[in-house]
Amino acid sequence: MEKNLNIYKQYRKRLKAYYYMMSVVGWDSETVAPIGCFEERGKQMGVIAEEVYKIQTDKDFIEAINFLYDHRDELDDALRHEIVNQKKELDKTLKIPMQEIIDSQILFSSSSNIWAQAKKDNDFKKFEDTLEKIVQFKRRYIKYLETDELKGYNVLLDEFEEGMSIKEYDQFFNLLREKLVPFVKKVLEKGNDFNKEFASKKYKVEDQKKICEYFRDVLCFDKNHGIMMESEHPFTSGFGQSDVRITVHYYEKEFLSSIYSVIHETGHALYEANVSDELSDTFANGGASMAMHESQSRFYENIIGRDENFLKKHYPYIKSVYKKNLKDVSFENFYKLVNKVEASFIRTEADELTYPLHVMLRYELEKKLMDGSIEVKDLEKEWNKLFYEYFGIKVKKASQGVLQDVHWSGGSFGYFPTYALGSAYACQFLNAMKKDIDFEEELKKENTLVINEWLIEKIHKYGASKSPKELMMIASGEEFNPQYYVDYLIDKYSKIYSIE
Amino acid sequence: MEKNLNIYKQYRKRLKAYYYMMSVVGWDSETVAPIGCFEERGKQMGVIAEEVYKIQTDKDFIEAINFLYDHRDELDDALRHEIVNQKKELDKTLKIPMQEIIDSQILFSSSSNIWAQAKKDNDFKKFEDTLEKIVQFKRRYIKYLETDELKGYNVLLDEFEEGMSIKEYDQFFNLLREKLVPFVKKVLEKGNDFNKEFASKKYKVEDQKKICEYFRDVLCFDKNHGIMMESEHPFTSGFGQSDVRITVHYYEKEFLSSIYSVIHETGHALYEANVSDELSDTFANGGASMAMHESQSRFYENIIGRDENFLKKHYPYIKSVYKKNLKDVSFENFYKLVNKVEASFIRTEADELTYPLHVMLRYELEKKLMDGSIEVKDLEKEWNKLFYEYFGIKVKKASQGVLQDVHWSGGSFGYFPTYALGSAYACQFLNAMKKDIDFEEELKKENTLVINEWLIEKIHKYGASKSPKELMMIASGEEFNPQYYVDYLIDKYSKIYSIE
Repeated sequence: MEKNLNIYKQYRKRLKAYYYMMSVVGWDSETVAPIGCFEERGKQMGVIAEEVYKIQTDKDFIEAINFLYDHRDELDDALRHEIVNQKKELDKTLKIPMQEIIDSQILFSSSSNIWAQAKKDNDFKKFEDTLEKIVQFKRRYIKYLETDELKGYNVLLDEFEEGMSIKEYDQFFNLLREKLVPFVKKVLEKGNDFNKEFASKKYKVEDQKKICEYFRDVLCFDKNHGIMMESEHPFTSGFGQSDVRITVHYYEKEFLSSIYSVIHETGHALYEANVSDELSDTFANGGASMAMHESQSRFYENIIGRDENFLKKHYPYIKSVYKKNLKDVSFENFYKLVNKVEASFIRTEADELTYPLHVMLRYELEKKLMDGSIEVKDLEKEWNKLFYEYFGIKVKKASQGVLQDVHWSGGSFGYFPTYALGSAYACQFLNAMKKDIDFEEELKKENTLVINEWLIEKIHKYGASKSPKELMMIASGEEFNPQYYVDYLIDKYSKIYSIE
Repeated sequence: MEKNLNIYKQYRKRLKAYYYMMSVVGWDSETVAPIGCFEERGKQMGVIAEEVYKIQTDKDFIEAINFLYDHRDELDDALRHEIVNQKKELDKTLKIPMQEIIDSQILFSSSSNIWAQAKKDNDFKKFEDTLEKIVQFKRRYIKYLETDELKGYNVLLDEFEEGMSIKEYDQFFNLLREKLVPFVKKVLEKGNDFNKEFASKKYKVEDQKKICEYFRDVLCFDKNHGIMMESEHPFTSGFGQSDVRITVHYYEKEFLSSIYSVIHETGHALYEANVSDELSDTFANGGASMAMHESQSRFYENIIGRDENFLKKHYPYIKSVYKKNLKDVSFENFYKLVNKVEASFIRTEADELTYPLHVMLRYELEKKLMDGSIEVKDLEKEWNKLFYEYFGIKVKKASQGVLQDVHWSGGSFGYFPTYALGSAYACQFLNAMKKDIDFEEELKKENTLVINEWLIEKIHKYGASKSPKELMMIASGEEFNPQYYVDYLIDKYSKIYSIE
């Protein structure tokens, strides 16, 4: 045991150092690297990927993992959880033939460019062949990894969110479909009366930066252990707890975009930064899962960031920076704008209420694509049909419909559902949090320290040392229950839109 | 042969990928990394350093290098040069006992902080013990690496500039001492009459950035394969030819500082960026030596950047940006400021003419420290004595004297002389260039393309595939001759200071 544990830890230490370096290089690529560097960079990173693969598949390491897996009952909770995950990863590495890996890398090296071109040309046909190859690959990928417990699309769902399968997601989305689709229709019919012309005025990047720094500080982002920069698309990158970074993108004519980006990304960042130091040297020093991570970013973005008390507290500052543009804009008007509901085509621009319907649509299509009940050639038609069903508007361009997201071009099937699941987790946490602290009173304060501390104590500190299901139990005292999400949305938007 | 060549190339490819990644992480550390990340980063990079060491000292790699070294006559020029250098590095790795390496790493992990504190307190005593340990280590280091050809301080000199020894440097510095020390005295006695009060006005960082971007473009820095950012101290970092980066630091009250930083660093960057693509996969895809690199940065900074025609061409733009501050400043006045000569204490702030005297002082002291003819306890006294001899002014504070540079605290002995040597190389290149192109006419043009092309063709493209001596022969058609440097300086400053 002692010997295997030492071997395992030795290899873990090495792998973590590689992941660390690769993350820094990745950050550099997304933020400042010049466009002409990527061919060479790809080559060099390819060599490093081979080095990592050699370590991951080293006989001694595999033996140690297998030994520890067989003796997992003797390990402490955190390590047992880690070993089970490592064993899963290892099996994956060993079950998929090397040639498939190589072929898929070749496929994915050009697929996102082909997708981008097709999107630009609004022509799904131009992406169809490539997507067909990707779907075929994912179907084979599933076959390689299927077990008695995990079959079909569940293999992919479990990769992104351990423990979530078609059964659970169906329950989740069925509830959303039943409750939210009709509710959204009501909200859209009712409508809201407010001035939104000011929102598309020009807001100087310099001023937007100031506002972003302000909210970063309100949410208590630790500037000694992280930075904020610009990138094409906002993201968070954590290199362990000591260095967690966020990016924002500034659009001159969309001043809300950078505000909600910085709040969203800070949510991710707080999670990464507040994992317990005891987990530093393990693979658990990050978020527990995709949805758990998204639950934190959405908690900050929507539950805090679009809250009436929170905005009432901070609107005066926003107004003081954007003096001219917001001169005649009342808080009530601003609050309505921030929480406006619209039937819109683009997921990433959707409001809090309609967002899960966008995700549901993708989930339904993925499920059918993976079990073969629809084929790629029918995808656009199916997309547009479902979209009309949920939103009551007709998709006119592929770039507004089936081609809008990058995910499928990179082979990410099973990822989308975690976005909606994260929002649902967040609402369940909110419910639990309210039993311990006076949430609305906290939002009237200078910063969110007390709220942060609750999330740290109940979620963040555990990092990835617990499964999402275990974490949900620890944090909320019960199993995942999507009813909290539905109740939250219907309650909030009934008030804003004065619906009985 | 075939087999050994393949093994060698395989290991080289791996090492290059590690160096690439480590350079990107290093860049990140120097530019944006948050202060709280460095403990963790040090740990992770330590693990990677071990990985690299394992590869460097792998039996197969060593055997391949030894084989290729023994058969070096059968290799092409570039590869032979590389193998000879690799063999040198290998011997170094093998000759220094592991315990010495570990002990020295511990020593250097705290030495620069101790130096910084001593400098802050203006107290050499506080650094004395640490420097004593460093000097003792370097003396032992020399002993480990001495050969029949290379003894004493020469071991260190050769590390920074292949082929340069005490003999050559003595000749070089003796000429400088003989010609420049009396000339500098004349210049300082003569003085120059111009307004310099405007130079310490406040110049907005935003404007300084604009000017830096302007000069970056004038010198044809390739923005597709490089970026410019800010850092505490300006530097250049090249990750192969496809990604070469420079940094600048903006001081609001020193507008010349950022201009000459960007020109200097672009000189380094052009060198790195224009190494022939054929050398991409080799260890020769960078500059040939410290002095050769410095020759390029100084060529741009001083020979181009402080040239009368060049400045006449670009002063109108500078003036257009700094409208208010430069309103009443004539070109003649500006030119005199840019080329003013002063007896000053700080090397990094020294002018072109007195600069080599600062370096000479350090060379003399290092030489004596290494052969034991002076000891650390006497260093401050010796520094101040020599300084008075060369500059005629008395050092009053250790931070202005013996404690001003970081180099010794990091164990860099033998480095300083390359700074002056680089300037001397540059002047010899200028002499050769003038035979091929109308240098002064080129400086009147929009950009320095034609000058760049000469340097690319004669120096840059060879990367590190030639020794500095070979490169000097290729570029100038003769051996290194410091007379060009002395002539250039005396000629230029005689004109500016109207000295017969």
